[in-house]
Amino acid sequence: MDTRHPMNTHFDIHLWMGRQLACIEDALSSWVSAATLVESGHHVHSDLVTAMRYAVLGGGKRLRPLLVLAAFEGVCSGLVQNSLQEEWLEEAARRGAPDQPMYVEKPAETALRAACAVELIHTYSLVHDDMPCMDNDVLRRGKPTVHAQFGQASALLVGDALQSLAFELLTPDDDCVSSAHQARLCGLLSRAAGHAGMAGGQAMDLVSTGQVLTELQLLEMHRLKTGALLQASVMMGAACGDATIDVQQALQTYGAAMGLAFQVVDDILDVTADSQTLGKTAGKDACQQKPTFVSLLGLERANAYAQQLKNQALAALATSGLSNTLVLQELTHLVVDRNK
Amino acid sequence: MDTRHPMNTHFDIHLWMGRQLACIEDALSSWVSAATLVESGHHVHSDLVTAMRYAVLGGGKRLRPLLVLAAFEGVCSGLVQNSLQEEWLEEAARRGAPDQPMYVEKPAETALRAACAVELIHTYSLVHDDMPCMDNDVLRRGKPTVHAQFGQASALLVGDALQSLAFELLTPDDDCVSSAHQARLCGLLSRAAGHAGMAGGQAMDLVSTGQVLTELQLLEMHRLKTGALLQASVMMGAACGDATIDVQQALQTYGAAMGLAFQVVDDILDVTADSQTLGKTAGKDACQQKPTFVSLLGLERANAYAQQLKNQALAALATSGLSNTLVLQELTHLVVDRNK
Repeated sequence: MDTRHPMNTHFDIHLWMGRQLACIEDALSSWVSAATLVESGHHVHSDLVTAMRYAVLGGGKRLRPLLVLAAFEGVCSGLVQNSLQEEWLEEAARRGAPDQPMYVEKPAETALRAACAVELIHTYSLVHDDMPCMDNDVLRRGKPTVHAQFGQASALLVGDALQSLAFELLTPDDDCVSSAHQARLCGLLSRAAGHAGMAGGQAMDLVSTGQVLTELQLLEMHRLKTGALLQASVMMGAACGDATIDVQQALQTYGAAMGLAFQVVDDILDVTADSQTLGKTAGKDACQQKPTFVSLLGLERANAYAQQLKNQALAALATSGLSNTLVLQELTHLVVDRNK
Repeated sequence: MDTRHPMNTHFDIHLWMGRQLACIEDALSSWVSAATLVESGHHVHSDLVTAMRYAVLGGGKRLRPLLVLAAFEGVCSGLVQNSLQEEWLEEAARRGAPDQPMYVEKPAETALRAACAVELIHTYSLVHDDMPCMDNDVLRRGKPTVHAQFGQASALLVGDALQSLAFELLTPDDDCVSSAHQARLCGLLSRAAGHAGMAGGQAMDLVSTGQVLTELQLLEMHRLKTGALLQASVMMGAACGDATIDVQQALQTYGAAMGLAFQVVDDILDVTADSQTLGKTAGKDACQQKPTFVSLLGLERANAYAQQLKNQALAALATSGLSNTLVLQELTHLVVDRNK
């Protein structure tokens, strides 16, 4: 993964995204793989891996992995990356054996693992959320949902196994990720996914259907349901780059505003876009009587709120002290001003 | 948690278990708690935590946590425990401030967290396995299953959140568990739970229903479905005590034999015991046409096989080089010669 890019002038976010997305897709395909199962000599449970690959590799915006990599790049900004390379060379010279295998953390691989782990958690939540006992949806990323394609029992297991796999990715057996990073990343991801994060938000969503929520309740629900994992993406990228406490705090504020903005826009698009553009069923919220920012604020105020959150996010970046937040800025614009 | 016990003579496994179980129940109740949610000021998603507590605190043999603690105790056998205490005292003396907060790993808490994390993974698998799209069971640990009590959507989320919580327990924010232990424990647990472990075994189970399996296929299914997590329990206990490679290998062999023995006995009890004794629906395997060791070998040969596996497990302990494996030995007898 090449984390350098031309500074400010002539910077093209789509070029940057293209490069990162190629890495992400490649890594996901290699890490969600049946290869580890072949040694057992049996192939019965490779059905599970086939369904896992169907769920993970079926497209998607990959926003969360991109946020991990963008935050990592913003925090590193050349500095950490270079000092680690210097450390490697010094250590190699000291040993007098530059080509001998030795321990060195690969920061770019750490970030790529974090990026893919977050995407696996996101994907598992979609698989479970689409099941008949939840949203009962048959269309996702323009394809039949996992339970529509493989049956409910398989969808249940696919989601379960994807959650485990996220933590497997963060804890590789070799030494390419330091114990400190493994521990910190597992801690951030599990909290964002669990009862005080995404799953808790889903549970609030469940009991909120058909109810009228206050703005505070709606904010809390989305802070957990969508916001926690988006914020964790930013924080995991920052952790991979060993961000200072000050930078972590600024990025936490950024992640919170960005996460909420994403959800407000999601609510808006559910009303204004069609299913083909979205790749998932549009108009679902109103149909299921779910409280949304549009149902609460109306379309116009919801739009204004999204812009306000975008400005909050950008302001947090501006005061972060990071020398290069261009990628995060551009991603923020793309997320809030997207049409699908 | 007091990990000392009288050596060999007069050792009472039930007394030991009673002490450990009190710790485990207490820790589970405190760690699966709504306390962390109160700060948000909203209680809507405390419904989720209520259902999680119902699932976790509803009884159960707690075999997996007991294995973690027994392996930890076997590996420590006074030595590591004492040297860590000495380290603490030396470090405290060096700083000249024995009562000041400082970093020191608490090995007993690390093991207790590992023990509870394994139990959460086991419980989540039961919750999901009981759902209508899987085994469709309404009785578990003598009570209505989670979906029977709270609905399917809640059961799905309870399982998902319990899996996340397992990794939250292993990665506490304070310094009571070292990064190295956090990383190692997350690695062991995620692999045991995932597609190449428990979830993979469940998937094999799914496609095996109504099929005739060879002994090799049945072994492989159970090695993954039940064996992986039981073996991981032993290995996680060993990791908490920083076992040497030799000891790890012996305990891996022990865990594999013990895990398989557990499942063979489970298959036998499904035929020979009644639902009230088991606390779950008896006779389910035959009713669902699931291949089992009894259907494959017959009752008599299945019994003999369980005893053979018990002896293999005990032999692995005898050659482990550990000075005190009494608790693990006694647990092995209890598991294989149990009647429920």
